Amino acid sequence: MDHVNKYIESNKDRFLEELMELLRIPSVSADSNHKNDVKRAAEYVKDSLLKAGADSAEICATSGHPIVYGEKMIDPKMRTVLVYGHYDVQPPDPVDLWTSPPFEPVIKDEKIYARGACDDKGQVFMHVKALETMIRNDALPCNIKFLIEGEEEVGSDNLAKWTRENKDRLKADVILISDTAMIGNDTPSIESGLRGLSYVEVELTGPNRDLHSGVYGGAVANPIEILCRMIASAKDADNHVTIPGFYDDVTVLTGEEREKLNKAPFSLDTFKKELAIDDVHGEKGYTTIERIGIRPTFELNGIWGGYTGEGAKTVLPSKASAKISMRLVPNQNSEKITRLFVDYFESIVPKTMKMKITRHHGGEPVVTPTEGVAFQAAEKAMETTFGKKPIPTRGGGSIPIVAMFEKELGLKSVLMGFGLDSDGIHSPNESFGVFNFLQGIRTIPHFYKNYAEMAG
Amino acid sequence: MDHVNKYIESNKDRFLEELMELLRIPSVSADSNHKNDVKRAAEYVKDSLLKAGADSAEICATSGHPIVYGEKMIDPKMRTVLVYGHYDVQPPDPVDLWTSPPFEPVIKDEKIYARGACDDKGQVFMHVKALETMIRNDALPCNIKFLIEGEEEVGSDNLAKWTRENKDRLKADVILISDTAMIGNDTPSIESGLRGLSYVEVELTGPNRDLHSGVYGGAVANPIEILCRMIASAKDADNHVTIPGFYDDVTVLTGEEREKLNKAPFSLDTFKKELAIDDVHGEKGYTTIERIGIRPTFELNGIWGGYTGEGAKTVLPSKASAKISMRLVPNQNSEKITRLFVDYFESIVPKTMKMKITRHHGGEPVVTPTEGVAFQAAEKAMETTFGKKPIPTRGGGSIPIVAMFEKELGLKSVLMGFGLDSDGIHSPNESFGVFNFLQGIRTIPHFYKNYAEMAG
Repeated sequence: MDHVNKYIESNKDRFLEELMELLRIPSVSADSNHKNDVKRAAEYVKDSLLKAGADSAEICATSGHPIVYGEKMIDPKMRTVLVYGHYDVQPPDPVDLWTSPPFEPVIKDEKIYARGACDDKGQVFMHVKALETMIRNDALPCNIKFLIEGEEEVGSDNLAKWTRENKDRLKADVILISDTAMIGNDTPSIESGLRGLSYVEVELTGPNRDLHSGVYGGAVANPIEILCRMIASAKDADNHVTIPGFYDDVTVLTGEEREKLNKAPFSLDTFKKELAIDDVHGEKGYTTIERIGIRPTFELNGIWGGYTGEGAKTVLPSKASAKISMRLVPNQNSEKITRLFVDYFESIVPKTMKMKITRHHGGEPVVTPTEGVAFQAAEKAMETTFGKKPIPTRGGGSIPIVAMFEKELGLKSVLMGFGLDSDGIHSPNESFGVFNFLQGIRTIPHFYKNYAEMAG
Repeated sequence: MDHVNKYIESNKDRFLEELMELLRIPSVSADSNHKNDVKRAAEYVKDSLLKAGADSAEICATSGHPIVYGEKMIDPKMRTVLVYGHYDVQPPDPVDLWTSPPFEPVIKDEKIYARGACDDKGQVFMHVKALETMIRNDALPCNIKFLIEGEEEVGSDNLAKWTRENKDRLKADVILISDTAMIGNDTPSIESGLRGLSYVEVELTGPNRDLHSGVYGGAVANPIEILCRMIASAKDADNHVTIPGFYDDVTVLTGEEREKLNKAPFSLDTFKKELAIDDVHGEKGYTTIERIGIRPTFELNGIWGGYTGEGAKTVLPSKASAKISMRLVPNQNSEKITRLFVDYFESIVPKTMKMKITRHHGGEPVVTPTEGVAFQAAEKAMETTFGKKPIPTRGGGSIPIVAMFEKELGLKSVLMGFGLDSDGIHSPNESFGVFNFLQGIRTIPHFYKNYAEMAG
């Protein structure tokens, strides 16, 4: 692999420049004002694949944002790897907390700062540049298909349908995804399980208009207060979720399994220090690793209502809203949990309020196999480039499409991510280490080599 | 009073036009971007007083927004009435709920729609035009002083100091204020008590940055959730406020007093229908009239935190904030209640959170005398113009300066307001009836006549 490494070393500045170009496109899928930017990002990814040496690449329209599909077929008898990723990004809000503009990428302290730097443009681009590197150095031992979507951050609404309609063309042996994080640059790890997601938005309406809190206060139910009470009632004093049936389907791990899980290197002091918190907080009876990895959650993502400007305004507002998401663990079902939530909130909403619940995207929890050849090929690849065997972890985040691919294509995924928790994805000042970006490009060719050899 | 009525009738269109001119100035005292507009409104009020025939009128600088002071002295031996009002207005948010722009007044269905139409520009302007009317018709039997401030909506921070420093010039026999509402145009009423106010803003900070709710959710305390729990804990199931000591100083009314209070015309059905609510809500053991008039409240005026945009963002936010106000009843003290609130929240905030509490303006509850000559002069004036004796009511709103004037100047106030609860002050589409505006101008000269005669 000497040629490969030399090629990466001598082209790394150009690789970075090309990534920066992609990061400059504000492809925020959640914001309809950015529809054209999302399309521009798709075009850029398509062009990059063609420049890297793909046989073909195209923009596939959906009823939402488009999917980029490309392939490099070496030999139909060889193994085929389907690379999944997404070129859309989270909204950059709150923008005023960024130290540099979210769509004007800069490199500071060996990190690329931009929205999407890690999630997932940076990680997608590792695969594009690894493809180029392998093709130029005659080091590609597998067929590769790329499926890069533009709706991951808004629930991949059109991906399942498109996947079903393109089953033949998506035929492969395994799916390779870089959209997760490692424990650290000196502690490589690979995700072997991901939580599912159920995401809802609740709007309460009390009086038909904002009222003067002096004239009406005390006699008319306040939607903010009622919403707070309903939210507070969803957990008990031990931080167990009180929604009836919420834990019914949770797979209970054995004492041995939990013990193994808790052996992952983790420092509570570092964790607290890094977040500047005096204490952690969560479900009684579980460690921080367990709370993140194997337990479902009930989390507030946003709340708003009434007067939120400068100073004081004595208003009794008409409406209050909250965005609530629940992370799900294996054997829980997103649709069922959403239904249990709706049932519970409907059972406790007082008749002084009108309630509207909007269902945002959901996704199923998954466990990826650690015994298969593909996982081992990834493990060995990381061991080669990092000099340490990666640790299998159970991640807290969700990639709902992993369960969908398993269902629609019958394919398992390998989650070989190169991000770090400190990259601040979904936060202001998202970053991606220059080392991590290049290390991904170095590791991916090893994966293909190992996989071709091991799968035979 | 025939001349007076004729004068009003033949000048009413001009009176309305001049009011519209004042309403066009966005004098939002809470928003520092409107500082110059606030000043422009002060100039307009000053000029109006001079045009109406005041001997003098001036803009008095304070360390905040200026005070307009003017006077018309007939004879030092005659009674002197001090008219108080304010020319600043509430912020117009949420602007998108207005059917016409808040600072482009229009008359529709016999109502003037604009921010400040009722609160308090429209009501202040009644006094200016009544002054003009009385002067032009030689019908002014008292000396009049005008004190029109620009910081009522932000807590009248500089008024007490200015009042203390101008005691001599403010010498008067009574204060007349139109900044309240009546029960209805066919049911005139006069406020005889007002609740005080304690207004705080709470900010909780959990982790030092917004986190990915998948990567951290379940293991790190969520400031929105904690804030909701703290808010929910401030009332029990009977909607009694649980802050220790909160009710300690509340004056308890006798059964007889409560009975009398509940005799005020009030239809629960109309109340619910008008607000489009299925039920009222409040402290157990009290009627709606009592909940508004004689009981203190704990009210949420605003809440915000996390992602509040379109769609879904899986963020575990760093911060959450709420604006909370407490209405106080006679014998409660604003500073003490604020302290009890702070003590309570400090006692329940978990160590996973950092809390910052900002104190916004406060004000003391007051009871105005219904036996005095000034109240009776107002009662008789309204009886003359409305054809019905007005009902004394206990209002829910606060005019903190009433207690301040009593303390600093030793003067009682008469709260002769001409608004209606349906005017939607502090709400989108604030309005003021054309009838109410003109009826105010017609009633005020009767007040002066009655007061001069009755006080001798």
